[in-house]
Amino acid sequence: MGGMKAMMFAASVLVLFGLARAGAQPHWSYSGADGPEHWAGLSPHYGACSGKNQAPINLAGFIEANLEPIAFSYRAGGDEILNNGHTVQVSYAAGSSIAVDGHVFHLKQFHFHAPSENRVNGVSFPMEAHLVHVDKDGNLAVVAVLFRRGEANEALAEAWAKMPRRNGDRHAFPSRIDAAGLLPADRVYYRFNGSLTTPPCSEGVLWLVMKNPVPVSQQQMEKFAGTIEQPNNRPIQPRNARAVLR
Amino acid sequence: MGGMKAMMFAASVLVLFGLARAGAQPHWSYSGADGPEHWAGLSPHYGACSGKNQAPINLAGFIEANLEPIAFSYRAGGDEILNNGHTVQVSYAAGSSIAVDGHVFHLKQFHFHAPSENRVNGVSFPMEAHLVHVDKDGNLAVVAVLFRRGEANEALAEAWAKMPRRNGDRHAFPSRIDAAGLLPADRVYYRFNGSLTTPPCSEGVLWLVMKNPVPVSQQQMEKFAGTIEQPNNRPIQPRNARAVLR
Repeated sequence: MGGMKAMMFAASVLVLFGLARAGAQPHWSYSGADGPEHWAGLSPHYGACSGKNQAPINLAGFIEANLEPIAFSYRAGGDEILNNGHTVQVSYAAGSSIAVDGHVFHLKQFHFHAPSENRVNGVSFPMEAHLVHVDKDGNLAVVAVLFRRGEANEALAEAWAKMPRRNGDRHAFPSRIDAAGLLPADRVYYRFNGSLTTPPCSEGVLWLVMKNPVPVSQQQMEKFAGTIEQPNNRPIQPRNARAVLR
Repeated sequence: MGGMKAMMFAASVLVLFGLARAGAQPHWSYSGADGPEHWAGLSPHYGACSGKNQAPINLAGFIEANLEPIAFSYRAGGDEILNNGHTVQVSYAAGSSIAVDGHVFHLKQFHFHAPSENRVNGVSFPMEAHLVHVDKDGNLAVVAVLFRRGEANEALAEAWAKMPRRNGDRHAFPSRIDAAGLLPADRVYYRFNGSLTTPPCSEGVLWLVMKNPVPVSQQQMEKFAGTIEQPNNRPIQPRNARAVLR
């Protein structure tokens, strides 16, 4: 029993250390001692981070499938932008949703990672937006939009004009912004089964990755980089037994 | 810290209780206090049993996909049959494998559940065989064969003639038996991403379920039922964000 006791004591110390530093949720980051390769060990609540169905992934080895179009039902609902220390996140008012195979998920928020978290055939993109949706039972679906370097993104301009500069800053928008503006015109997509890309890395998340990237300007990238320490992308995770559908 | 300490102490007691009863691996069963709904709590090693990507499932809500045929490369290799208290299991000598999308998995053993663990569009089958394969990195792929009530199954007859009656009994075969005899003639299949169906319920398991059932006679079913306490099927688990391909 000595080994078991020691292990549990060590776990307690880790938990308390994390709680003391960051309140209810143990601190984590994108590098160093609390970086991605250590997330699973930072807290018993982060155990899923070492699971077999984690995101992001390198989308490759595709299986051709008959994927029904996603039914987007978005309206202007972005009401506030928050800097949470890891990203900038736009909260979304109720009333916007997607339907996938008849299953409805409601848009709650969107946020950004640079460079992209997911890769496609090994290719990284300069930035990625995650539009996070939840169904009536708490199951998550994320629509991911990849960015390519190009002209200024008009939909992004509205959010970027209110960029919250410091961790904890939040700014309301003068009028609600519409997440539909972030989507490519042609909404064909890849599908896989994954997780949150940040602790607690919860699994059971439906990933819908837009095949067509949308533009972002050099100036817009720099404004994000000047606000959020980069990179803020988790490294790609093993696909294991998962199929990536297209 | 009182609550945390108490929780960890309770966990230790549970672990030690399990270890005392069954050696290195805590005891589990198909009903009662150590039945399926309690597996995740029986041991810290069984935590995956409450994961989001568990097996078996009800195969339904299919996505039509271009699934390449499984390349079966089997030869006679079944050398011994064991009663492990949960099922009867035939161990398989090296030299038989499958390839899925160019990825090779080696056949290690096959065993049986009655009634079937997986369901198809809600339909249960009287029995199901699991042919368990492993790749060079330890990743698992299971070929599942569903049984329908009918004539005697000749491939099964060889194994059933050596049925090990008591927990721990094992019998060698006079000559090696061939798992290929258990497969249907047409090997079209469903694919999903799941787990072991018994503790530790490890995830990342590739499931390949034969669409066409094979026969099993009433007498063969009774011989299995007289040996292994039934049911020995885990209840179906939520599909969550998984696609079931066909």
